[in-house]
Amino acid sequence: MIQNYEGRKRVVIENVIPQVECGAYPAKRTINEPCTVEADVFADGHDVVQARLAFRQAGKKQWQYKPMQFLINDRWSATFTPTTEGDWEYTIQGWVDHFLSWQHGLKKKFEDNQDVSVELQIGRQLMEEGASRLTGKEAKRLTKLMNQFSDTAEQATAVALAQDRELTELMYSTHDKNQDVKQYEKILGLKVERERARFSSWYEFFPRSAAAEPGRHGTFRDCIRLLPRISEMGFDVIYFPPIHAIGEKNRKGKNNATNASEGDVGSPWAIGSRLGGHKSIQQDLGSFEDFEALVNEAKNYGIEIALDYALQCAPDHPYVQEHPQWFKWRPDGTVQYAENPPKKYQDVLPFNFENDDWQNMWKELKDIIDFWVARGVKIFRVDNPHTKPFAFWEWMIAAVQKKNPEVLFLAEAFTKPRVMERLGKVGFTQSYTYFTWRETREELEEYMNDLTKTEVREYFRPNFWPNTPDILPPHLTHGDEAAHISRMILAATLSSNWGMYGPVYEFGINKPMPAKEEYVDNEKYQLHHWDWNRRTRISETIARINLIRKENEALQYTNNIVVSQADNAHLFTFAKKSPVGNNIVIVVVNLDFRWKQAGWIKVPLAELGLPNHLNYRVHDLLSGHTYHWQNEWNYVELEPSTMPAHILQLEAPNIS
Amino acid sequence: MIQNYEGRKRVVIENVIPQVECGAYPAKRTINEPCTVEADVFADGHDVVQARLAFRQAGKKQWQYKPMQFLINDRWSATFTPTTEGDWEYTIQGWVDHFLSWQHGLKKKFEDNQDVSVELQIGRQLMEEGASRLTGKEAKRLTKLMNQFSDTAEQATAVALAQDRELTELMYSTHDKNQDVKQYEKILGLKVERERARFSSWYEFFPRSAAAEPGRHGTFRDCIRLLPRISEMGFDVIYFPPIHAIGEKNRKGKNNATNASEGDVGSPWAIGSRLGGHKSIQQDLGSFEDFEALVNEAKNYGIEIALDYALQCAPDHPYVQEHPQWFKWRPDGTVQYAENPPKKYQDVLPFNFENDDWQNMWKELKDIIDFWVARGVKIFRVDNPHTKPFAFWEWMIAAVQKKNPEVLFLAEAFTKPRVMERLGKVGFTQSYTYFTWRETREELEEYMNDLTKTEVREYFRPNFWPNTPDILPPHLTHGDEAAHISRMILAATLSSNWGMYGPVYEFGINKPMPAKEEYVDNEKYQLHHWDWNRRTRISETIARINLIRKENEALQYTNNIVVSQADNAHLFTFAKKSPVGNNIVIVVVNLDFRWKQAGWIKVPLAELGLPNHLNYRVHDLLSGHTYHWQNEWNYVELEPSTMPAHILQLEAPNIS
Repeated sequence: MIQNYEGRKRVVIENVIPQVECGAYPAKRTINEPCTVEADVFADGHDVVQARLAFRQAGKKQWQYKPMQFLINDRWSATFTPTTEGDWEYTIQGWVDHFLSWQHGLKKKFEDNQDVSVELQIGRQLMEEGASRLTGKEAKRLTKLMNQFSDTAEQATAVALAQDRELTELMYSTHDKNQDVKQYEKILGLKVERERARFSSWYEFFPRSAAAEPGRHGTFRDCIRLLPRISEMGFDVIYFPPIHAIGEKNRKGKNNATNASEGDVGSPWAIGSRLGGHKSIQQDLGSFEDFEALVNEAKNYGIEIALDYALQCAPDHPYVQEHPQWFKWRPDGTVQYAENPPKKYQDVLPFNFENDDWQNMWKELKDIIDFWVARGVKIFRVDNPHTKPFAFWEWMIAAVQKKNPEVLFLAEAFTKPRVMERLGKVGFTQSYTYFTWRETREELEEYMNDLTKTEVREYFRPNFWPNTPDILPPHLTHGDEAAHISRMILAATLSSNWGMYGPVYEFGINKPMPAKEEYVDNEKYQLHHWDWNRRTRISETIARINLIRKENEALQYTNNIVVSQADNAHLFTFAKKSPVGNNIVIVVVNLDFRWKQAGWIKVPLAELGLPNHLNYRVHDLLSGHTYHWQNEWNYVELEPSTMPAHILQLEAPNIS
Repeated sequence: MIQNYEGRKRVVIENVIPQVECGAYPAKRTINEPCTVEADVFADGHDVVQARLAFRQAGKKQWQYKPMQFLINDRWSATFTPTTEGDWEYTIQGWVDHFLSWQHGLKKKFEDNQDVSVELQIGRQLMEEGASRLTGKEAKRLTKLMNQFSDTAEQATAVALAQDRELTELMYSTHDKNQDVKQYEKILGLKVERERARFSSWYEFFPRSAAAEPGRHGTFRDCIRLLPRISEMGFDVIYFPPIHAIGEKNRKGKNNATNASEGDVGSPWAIGSRLGGHKSIQQDLGSFEDFEALVNEAKNYGIEIALDYALQCAPDHPYVQEHPQWFKWRPDGTVQYAENPPKKYQDVLPFNFENDDWQNMWKELKDIIDFWVARGVKIFRVDNPHTKPFAFWEWMIAAVQKKNPEVLFLAEAFTKPRVMERLGKVGFTQSYTYFTWRETREELEEYMNDLTKTEVREYFRPNFWPNTPDILPPHLTHGDEAAHISRMILAATLSSNWGMYGPVYEFGINKPMPAKEEYVDNEKYQLHHWDWNRRTRISETIARINLIRKENEALQYTNNIVVSQADNAHLFTFAKKSPVGNNIVIVVVNLDFRWKQAGWIKVPLAELGLPNHLNYRVHDLLSGHTYHWQNEWNYVELEPSTMPAHILQLEAPNIS
């Protein structure tokens, strides 16, 4: 139907980015993190086109505007910076600007010595029309300029007045209510979270191993005593494996033995027993008061306690009796345990998300989060989210964040790329990654490009971990101290979010179970005693790195990475520049944990917005040394037993 | 709202291609051209997922289905072939297949020597549920197989029966009506046009220059006499510049002189005079009867007459008096002519598409097309579509094709890439391209990749022209016969749609206007006499090439191109394989028009679906020679004065 066409709006707006799945999901930013929007904006013919970015907090009626800058090939760009947590919206508007077309044409014709008297009359008409769309002071100013323009007898003067800056700006402002302004057909969403969504340092440990003396079950009170130590290392999130009552039925023994022996504490991921479920606290850890004391005391150190959200039940979890319809039952009357044939996980029951009572189940599962949020927990590490439906996460995270936008979710998904990406789209704040298995320069570069140079950058925030209780990669097993330091530096500088399973890492423990990439005598199944007073060169370097991260905004972002070149394949180098301010950091890591490596690395000056010919100083934030460098290619050597990396702050005359 | 979620449908369907601008516009195919659809389909957890392609003619209720094949990384693919002209639709469906999950799990557990008696009971339940969803013969067959399975005493036999192929197929068919089948949220469109949309050979000439004897204005009757000649050269579209009454006011003279002299015929693009407008015929060309005779006689040769659709008016076009509101008027009471400041085009008035009467104007402009369609014209070459609003084209083309899906539109747009692409999206069948200015191997390869390896391939059908009345590229000016042959072979083999401004090309005329890339004494502004009896080596090669195109399906497609390598930078080589059948053609062109060039070229055997180690024959369809080749790299030499190209048909033992 011809009536469905806006026949007189000639502008086309296409290919707007960021745009996640055609706008089905929001892009993500944190408070005060700039959001650059690009679009193709053009019209038929040769008229001048203008474009602007419109943005607002969701729920507000009025748009705020930013004029877009023309880049090349009909591509335009503008940046806005969301200032509050929650949902924001943006779209693009464009119009054919007859005043600017006239302005440009007039100048060209006059310079071509054509008589422009009729053109001057046309200009007067355009200005009159513009003035009629303005009110008050602005209308008056435009009318004054218009009269000056048309009162001029000299064509040359009139042509000059037509190019007046104030006149141009006033005429631009007449488009605010112009019916011929075309708006992009979609309003796109931006999900804005607090800064810790983008910049965080996680320390994982088992609170039951927090005791100062061997043989005793650790408590939350013990954890409080560890806060100064963890704070000195610069972490701002402490993540605990599940703290709930542990199933007694089919409990696992040490080193994942099928049957527990007397006194075995079991896996905390086998949640629930006669003593309670996901809203309980395992009684040896302490009381709710103890837990809240820990949460509050941590807050004084700038540290948050993150809990584990593991949607599975021990066979003796109260849910099994209270809501049998939420589980799968076998023809022999037994409940279905988790399995990945032929493997069986008999201490754990999955929820059956296809059950008819799914709505009540979803609500109860969300209620677990609300329960802990009410007790001061604002960050959840979600266990295996990829084995529960995406629709559940989409609903649950949105429902929680609607009331509590400060709540963050880390997806513990080590699975196929599309699945990991989808979890980011449906709402997870951060995600575990493949970093742990990316070792060579090529692997690291390719992975960083996948994460930061594709649409993935808009919705998937990586969190790099060199190890977890489940993962002891071979390079740590074989690599000792330099390997631990090198991998930790990579994690903490490549990604603005990083974390580690702490005690084993600090103490350089790297003994695997036979033929497995997993720690032997794993804390998952037994208590451990740690000498919490001990400091190592690894823990000192961790403290140094986290401090460097706090002092260098460039390292507080991930998408700003520029991977660069080196003439020695063992050297991996990249640079980061803060989106706001001028902080520039260059990282060089020797990927060979054993031998000194030296060579020339390229500082990507052009990508950092610097001239290719430049004298500058780089200050190594790890060693304290300063080097005088010149142009792009410069020499480095790294002895892993001393320090396997440089973290160089670039100081140039125009960089302060 | 939780109710808005399909909580039990666990499958995710994403990134479906082809998909033009998030589904806003249809992809394009021709009748019987396969359409391969890909999608990411996956679910949470470890269950087996299945996916299928659903497709139908638009307006039909029932979907047809094709099972999708798993590729890698959750990517699936299936192909359907539209069999009729008009709009088609497709989407993707997916489901978690509990039967297949059970089947795989059962096998693994049995092989692990576990007792599977409960699993066998679960299988029985699944089959019962499946049988309840089938009717008639199928339900009976499934019940029979189910009973055989559960009557079996031996576990080993039951496990074997569970894998039965017929059982598996019957269980697959139970998903036709399964409520847990998830459908992709969009239904995507496919616009299917007749074959000539994809495979066409165009010959442009000015009918007024068709006279057999010098000095006389050519007529449609003269054109009829030229049909055998044009047919022998293998063309199937004859395109005429506008055939309407030519404006008398501000008429242009020879070589674009501002003022016509007595007897000057004017530019046919200055349409309309007291003698009529876009629905008139310039009286010297003949009558409507003559025109229809030409259209009908051409049809006997398998040739269609394409008309020019040029939306502009001479100052004396009847529209200017009848519909003054469709034009722009200047303050001095004169009508606005076309301009690109400081240039003026005073013989031509543009329509003002922003006028208030735009709906009536759109309808009248569409009526021009309908008028000529009623007189047998089914192809229109549209003059400068990029200077008229995209919304108009979108509406007009859809409205015309709704009644006459056989009508095709070629966009004469030589402008910015996003604008050219947009015209393809909004409905143009084909478009002119940048081919004319792509000369080196790198330029040709990059351009072919832009056109055929990006989303552009789905909606933008290139039509390659080595020249037009407006464009005489320097390589033709400086290159003589070998250049004409080489560029024509490139156009006709790189692109399945190609065309030429014929007489000048055949006769190797290449004299430019001083300092311009345009023919001197251009037919646009004057009559020309051609010796229509003359044959040249160029015209003979044209005939040969068009015959080769007709006999080799591989050359009837463009997106199937595989550009390959050569060790001599002057040699450009590529291969094409027909999507249906096994026709393979390898083209090698010497881009140096002057000197013999020789070297090794790589036949991309793997991309053509052939083994890397292969003995095969290639038959040069230009020279008639046959060569025995081996593996990928083979030697060629091309002497431009003999023939600047090979067009090699590949004959291998398994290629017939």
